[in-house]
Amino acid sequence: MDTDKPLVGVIMGSASDAGVMKGCVDVLKEMKIPSEVKILSAHRTPEQTREYAATAAKRGVQVIIAGAGWAAHLAGAVAAQTTLPVIGIPIDSSPLNGMDALLSTVQMPSGIPVATVALGKGGAKNAAVLAAQILALKYPPIEEEVSRYRKALTLAASERIDSWDDKER
Amino acid sequence: MDTDKPLVGVIMGSASDAGVMKGCVDVLKEMKIPSEVKILSAHRTPEQTREYAATAAKRGVQVIIAGAGWAAHLAGAVAAQTTLPVIGIPIDSSPLNGMDALLSTVQMPSGIPVATVALGKGGAKNAAVLAAQILALKYPPIEEEVSRYRKALTLAASERIDSWDDKER
Amino acid sequence: MDTDKPLVGVIMGSASDAGVMKGCVDVLKEMKIPSEVKILSAHRTPEQTREYAATAAKRGVQVIIAGAGWAAHLAGAVAAQTTLPVIGIPIDSSPLNGMDALLSTVQMPSGIPVATVALGKGGAKNAAVLAAQILALKYPPIEEEVSRYRKALTLAASERIDSWDDKER
Amino acid sequence: MDTDKPLVGVIMGSASDAGVMKGCVDVLKEMKIPSEVKILSAHRTPEQTREYAATAAKRGVQVIIAGAGWAAHLAGAVAAQTTLPVIGIPIDSSPLNGMDALLSTVQMPSGIPVATVALGKGGAKNAAVLAAQILALKYPPIEEEVSRYRKALTLAASERIDSWDDKER
Amino acid sequence: MDTDKPLVGVIMGSASDAGVMKGCVDVLKEMKIPSEVKILSAHRTPEQTREYAATAAKRGVQVIIAGAGWAAHLAGAVAAQTTLPVIGIPIDSSPLNGMDALLSTVQMPSGIPVATVALGKGGAKNAAVLAAQILALKYPPIEEEVSRYRKALTLAASERIDSWDDKER
Amino acid sequence: MDTDKPLVGVIMGSASDAGVMKGCVDVLKEMKIPSEVKILSAHRTPEQTREYAATAAKRGVQVIIAGAGWAAHLAGAVAAQTTLPVIGIPIDSSPLNGMDALLSTVQMPSGIPVATVALGKGGAKNAAVLAAQILALKYPPIEEEVSRYRKALTLAASERIDSWDDKER
Amino acid sequence: MDTDKPLVGVIMGSASDAGVMKGCVDVLKEMKIPSEVKILSAHRTPEQTREYAATAAKRGVQVIIAGAGWAAHLAGAVAAQTTLPVIGIPIDSSPLNGMDALLSTVQMPSGIPVATVALGKGGAKNAAVLAAQILALKYPPIEEEVSRYRKALTLAASERIDSWDDKER
Amino acid sequence: MDTDKPLVGVIMGSASDAGVMKGCVDVLKEMKIPSEVKILSAHRTPEQTREYAATAAKRGVQVIIAGAGWAAHLAGAVAAQTTLPVIGIPIDSSPLNGMDALLSTVQMPSGIPVATVALGKGGAKNAAVLAAQILALKYPPIEEEVSRYRKALTLAASERIDSWDDKER
Repeated sequence: MDTDKPLVGVIMGSASDAGVMKGCVDVLKEMKIPSEVKILSAHRTPEQTREYAATAAKRGVQVIIAGAGWAAHLAGAVAAQTTLPVIGIPIDSSPLNGMDALLSTVQMPSGIPVATVALGKGGAKNAAVLAAQILALKYPPIEEEVSRYRKALTLAASERIDSWDDKER
Repeated sequence: MDTDKPLVGVIMGSASDAGVMKGCVDVLKEMKIPSEVKILSAHRTPEQTREYAATAAKRGVQVIIAGAGWAAHLAGAVAAQTTLPVIGIPIDSSPLNGMDALLSTVQMPSGIPVATVALGKGGAKNAAVLAAQILALKYPPIEEEVSRYRKALTLAASERIDSWDDKER
Repeated sequence: MDTDKPLVGVIMGSASDAGVMKGCVDVLKEMKIPSEVKILSAHRTPEQTREYAATAAKRGVQVIIAGAGWAAHLAGAVAAQTTLPVIGIPIDSSPLNGMDALLSTVQMPSGIPVATVALGKGGAKNAAVLAAQILALKYPPIEEEVSRYRKALTLAASERIDSWDDKER
Repeated sequence: MDTDKPLVGVIMGSASDAGVMKGCVDVLKEMKIPSEVKILSAHRTPEQTREYAATAAKRGVQVIIAGAGWAAHLAGAVAAQTTLPVIGIPIDSSPLNGMDALLSTVQMPSGIPVATVALGKGGAKNAAVLAAQILALKYPPIEEEVSRYRKALTLAASERIDSWDDKER
Repeated sequence: MDTDKPLVGVIMGSASDAGVMKGCVDVLKEMKIPSEVKILSAHRTPEQTREYAATAAKRGVQVIIAGAGWAAHLAGAVAAQTTLPVIGIPIDSSPLNGMDALLSTVQMPSGIPVATVALGKGGAKNAAVLAAQILALKYPPIEEEVSRYRKALTLAASERIDSWDDKER
Repeated sequence: MDTDKPLVGVIMGSASDAGVMKGCVDVLKEMKIPSEVKILSAHRTPEQTREYAATAAKRGVQVIIAGAGWAAHLAGAVAAQTTLPVIGIPIDSSPLNGMDALLSTVQMPSGIPVATVALGKGGAKNAAVLAAQILALKYPPIEEEVSRYRKALTLAASERIDSWDDKER
Repeated sequence: MDTDKPLVGVIMGSASDAGVMKGCVDVLKEMKIPSEVKILSAHRTPEQTREYAATAAKRGVQVIIAGAGWAAHLAGAVAAQTTLPVIGIPIDSSPLNGMDALLSTVQMPSGIPVATVALGKGGAKNAAVLAAQILALKYPPIEEEVSRYRKALTLAASERIDSWDDKER
Repeated sequence: MDTDKPLVGVIMGSASDAGVMKGCVDVLKEMKIPSEVKILSAHRTPEQTREYAATAAKRGVQVIIAGAGWAAHLAGAVAAQTTLPVIGIPIDSSPLNGMDALLSTVQMPSGIPVATVALGKGGAKNAAVLAAQILALKYPPIEEEVSRYRKALTLAASERIDSWDDKER
């Protein structure tokens, strides 16, 4: 595992999605997984999106995470150009609270899957965790990070278990 | 207006959409508007879809009609590659009754519109009528066809106005 | 192309829709497409709406853009009175986030299409772009504007491609 | 109350709605309320629809019932042309199960109400009952019919109260 | 028409609905239609609700308007106890934006209609207009008010028709 | 526990709901829980419904199960008349697939709960299981039945665990 | 009834749900029903959740109330481990306004019911009332509290009945 | 890569899901990826589900695919017990057309992702393709299968591109 080359490509459809996507990038950093971040639009920069997706594997990228709102085609457009696993984050930036982005991302036709996670910030974090779980199958250091992350999550949640009760009484 | 070259490109995401799309092709034929029909998938044949969209204007196509179901990206993928008007038909082929196709087609981001019509067969007919209305601005024979079509529609509807009442009494 | 006469008629159902519709008018101005703007209600001023729609073609209008919220009938009411292409913008002004306006605008019956774009401000801009794409088939200066607009859109998006990444690192 | 002149105008957007609308006409007949039935489309025959609505009051019609599916504008288009009470029946004829017709009918803008009833056949019956309840305020014979109808409804339901239980044991 | 006795009963499910319902009461006052206003809950005060509905006709009330949110049963509970026309206003006070109140109000079973209007404040105004339209069939002074109201609505809308356009240029 | 007197009252809004409700009655019989079954409509037979609910506790009924479709008010109307636990089964008998019944049943206002289970047949069975779980707190023989039922459920599911795999290979 | 041991277990999926769940705890306190409160996640602390559910009955808990948002599995996960009645509160903490939590909580498979109440704060209060109604079947002091609670609710609502009317006139 | 030990665990919530899940198993066989298939319910057999998930990694399973309908908790329950990638297939077996299963599967809380694919049969196939894409990062023979599968998909789609057009003319 060459720590200089990005293993995960993180892309988003618009600069306005950066606030949501930061959750994704932060988790990747926390797990020390090298990544690259780009703003690419399936509709406004289709050539660059295609080029990015078609060359990702050659450049060493192993998982692509794509976040987009509205008629969110980004993850699907990328999945059409590569056989790397593509994770889609539907972003709730439209008046329809993200139902449009969710259906546009998850309802992919037979043969070209997108691994879709939850809407918005929670989904952005989970996309990073899912990418780590995929890479952990191959890279023992990432497996350790995933294991550590889950234990910390459980521990933090466990410590909270009686806290509210105590406060209340 | 060269009647040999297609003015309208009709594409669909899957052979299973052909039943719905026939309504579109039939109206174009009825109005004597030359068209071409192709099955192109934004996800399974992205290169051909891109090539088709990027070269359509040069080949004389002036309006593109794209029908697709599920996470229906076809119309949007085409719209990203051309500045010709693109009409999208959301097809109700998924368990969600086409709500996924409707939102995936209509909720396009700023700058790249898709002219979306109704779901399914009714939308397929209307896509052809809309294409004809657009071409009618430029081609007087098509303007005549559009005018004739509308009059026939109104006449047929007018003749029905008292029919049910008569039957009932 | 007589630059004094409006080629595009922009109408909206209520004065409260003006904020959303400004995005449409601004894009038309940017592309130097002469337009006229009116507040017309399918329900409160049906006669004026009908008169407007029925006489639009004679006055030189070639595309009508109609924005409305709630049970948005404006675009459909206009489409029933003219064979000009009618573009509908569903506005998200009701408690249902515009789902009512979207379905009321797009689900038109067979024979009378409305070219529906996305909800709200993004849709308003796209309605103007779509009108320009339609007029570009006939008017070379507008074709040039459309081409320039798309290139500027792509360029602006391209310049952003690495921006967030740079900021982050 | 002149029994020869229709008190209720029943209209529907398409001949294909006749099956659903029969439930409405049957209840009016059962209550001996004179009615007229027409197929009128807000989009395909807008002039006849307008003419019908604008002259209904003069011809003695006191309540108008309008049934339509998809982007169901019929009731609203009629309500815009008259101050008679207008009852709307959303018909579930589209792939969206009538949600489009319901929202298009009920979400009318301020000042122009449509009295909306349930989707489909149940709604068609109820439109007739509602029209009768409105007319009953003015015509004692209809008040008697309404009272009789409700009593019969309650009686029939009451007789069923123990029936299933008996069958089961 | 005895101007001292209320012709319209306006009820709402909770004191928190008063802001929305004020729009209804204001229109009734503007049209000089005597009304009474009560807070009655189908679930918290079922006896008073039943008593109110069952005695309304005897007390001279001719139309009942009921506004409620969430699982909005108030209009239906009243309709079950009277054959007076009952108008239901679904109020968007729940997290589901009023979709729950709309469906609970409009989807009444066969035989017991509720005349449902739009969600929230717009619907509250329209409930009053609809009640006036119903009473206008019987009371000429109310018919005059309804006619005047519609003319004022159209006039106000007409005066706005060119206003935005002027401002813009 | 007097086995002659019904502990559970099972009611439904319409005879057409009997097919769905049979699943409920069958589970109660299987668990030897005495029950009574009635068809009662919140709208068509409000007096009987009220009477039934108001006297249920006195007659020994301890849990009421109410199934209804469309604007399903039955469970709520009963809950308003008793402090016994009321279980609501939303039935998917309308064109909206039961979303109307679900929201009408579950979204009860503060103070008057309805214990809502899943839509249709699955929900009908679960209403019986839930009633049994409630009664099991008090009646040891029912606790035994509940325990036996769960074990049988788990056993049956466990036996299936490898069956499909075996068939396939 | 041992007032030292909790009869009701109140659990929630996340500390961020505490604001909503306080409504539940407050009603239980008001009715003097001993309860315990814990933060337990079906996904982050599955072992503790399982342990909690599997041992609840032995520790004297008779009803479990579980509140959660998003893909709300908490109530179902608990119901799978116990035959005590489990009440689920869907919390509207996601962009989809709680529709995800509602469907995840209520649509339980055959054999394992969750008694689902309304979304959010109103539902949290009602979960406590429902738990009290269930316990009231067995514990006369709780039956008295439930009866008192309902009377106070009705009285408070009754006192409001004429208040708004008075203010208005 | 030991071809005797299953790399993919395929589980489903109910035997009635087998028809949908066959699409998943068939694709895995076609790609020669060893798999095991089990019927496990998060609610009816929680212990076996937990045991299965907790021991999967040790037994050599590297990806788990879980299909379920209604309040589909299976994928989430498994994801809570392992850090292997878990793919969720929402199955459209309820009256709500699978919207309940989709939201229950995809809207997972922060920290525990489920890689969700499309509804029903299309999703089942895509779950297998996604699992293969994940395993392809590590196992060159599977990478070859994935590459071959994609080429065959594109080729088959390419051969269809003009097919409908030819038939038509």
